[in-house]
Amino acid sequence: MVGQGGRKPMDLLAEPERAQLLRGFHRRRLSRGELLSQPGAERDSVFILEKGRIRVFLALEDKEHTLTFLEPGDLYSTHSDTYVQAVSDSELLSVPTRQMLSRLSEVPAAAPVIVSVLGQALGHAMRLIEDLALRDVEGRLARFLQGMQERRGEPTAAGIRLHLDLTTEDIARLLGTTRQTVSSLLNRFVREGVLSRIAGGGFLILDVDQLRARSQRSRMSAG
Amino acid sequence: MVGQGGRKPMDLLAEPERAQLLRGFHRRRLSRGELLSQPGAERDSVFILEKGRIRVFLALEDKEHTLTFLEPGDLYSTHSDTYVQAVSDSELLSVPTRQMLSRLSEVPAAAPVIVSVLGQALGHAMRLIEDLALRDVEGRLARFLQGMQERRGEPTAAGIRLHLDLTTEDIARLLGTTRQTVSSLLNRFVREGVLSRIAGGGFLILDVDQLRARSQRSRMSAG
Repeated sequence: MVGQGGRKPMDLLAEPERAQLLRGFHRRRLSRGELLSQPGAERDSVFILEKGRIRVFLALEDKEHTLTFLEPGDLYSTHSDTYVQAVSDSELLSVPTRQMLSRLSEVPAAAPVIVSVLGQALGHAMRLIEDLALRDVEGRLARFLQGMQERRGEPTAAGIRLHLDLTTEDIARLLGTTRQTVSSLLNRFVREGVLSRIAGGGFLILDVDQLRARSQRSRMSAG
Repeated sequence: MVGQGGRKPMDLLAEPERAQLLRGFHRRRLSRGELLSQPGAERDSVFILEKGRIRVFLALEDKEHTLTFLEPGDLYSTHSDTYVQAVSDSELLSVPTRQMLSRLSEVPAAAPVIVSVLGQALGHAMRLIEDLALRDVEGRLARFLQGMQERRGEPTAAGIRLHLDLTTEDIARLLGTTRQTVSSLLNRFVREGVLSRIAGGGFLILDVDQLRARSQRSRMSAG
């Protein structure tokens, strides 16, 4: 939830608060494909990813929807509705949520950090809901690229260079669509001069205004 | 977000922590229809609804999606993506988010309460995302009724009595559909013996298992 760029939450905490908050966290290793949590698991926990990559998703019968990919430094909490799965061998620090909550009273300096992390997660969830309720797939892709560009884009003379460490399949999962649809929409964006591909992966965003305009179109009015 | 039943967050705080946390909150009155916040507003705030009723929604061009209705006692925070609108004359206590965050360090006992509220809001957002991504409208309505029944249902000899202070229009807005669709689905549930209507408003849920089964069907497999 807190993935995809930005400062890492634990970096905002000074020592010794950081050490004090992390007391009681225990280290876990997950193999690629292993589930850390799934709906109905007996208890919630808070964890910080140290190494590897983790996917958070919702699933119902044969259908699933990826909420986010976590990177090292990201803080996340398992909750009853989500699946949390290692997509590569991973290492994390974990503590039961209840224990973290009682620790918070002892480490007052940590409270604003935790609240901010949760606030960011809520903001991310809101954007996802907005996407799903109001945008078609082209609008979601435009909003996704525009958001990534704002957080990670590097301005160059030719346009804004955007390197993504996500595959087309990953993007499709985040947007709730298929790899084929993402591919053909990206090709359309290239054809229409919105962006171009960079050798070695990534994009050059040529027309940021156009990207923003497409992300602001609602599902009904999109042609 | 925290609406629709359950203990009210501020009731979990003992005096004098409650008073200490509320120091700096200022009272605001909103007339019916007035917006407390909209996307692009200059700053975020945290508020507690004291009287009235508030709708939180997302909008893009001519399309909108209601996230929740807030009731007195609910704690909510405005954030950049949402519209917050009084649906009846309302009164609330409000404070800038930044100020609340700095106050948290001084009132350590409040931190677990605020974190729990945010956690509940995130859980609510997850269920909405699950709804939008994975369920068709019948599944959303079944999940909604099942959830309300768990939190508010009163067991009787004939079935579980459920009183809702929401109109068919309100339910339609929460599920991202039309009043007509909600009406015809409710009629179908009545015809199929899942529930019956109670004179004076509300429902009697006759077959909870059937309701749960329908809420567990994904969009693809639902007939």
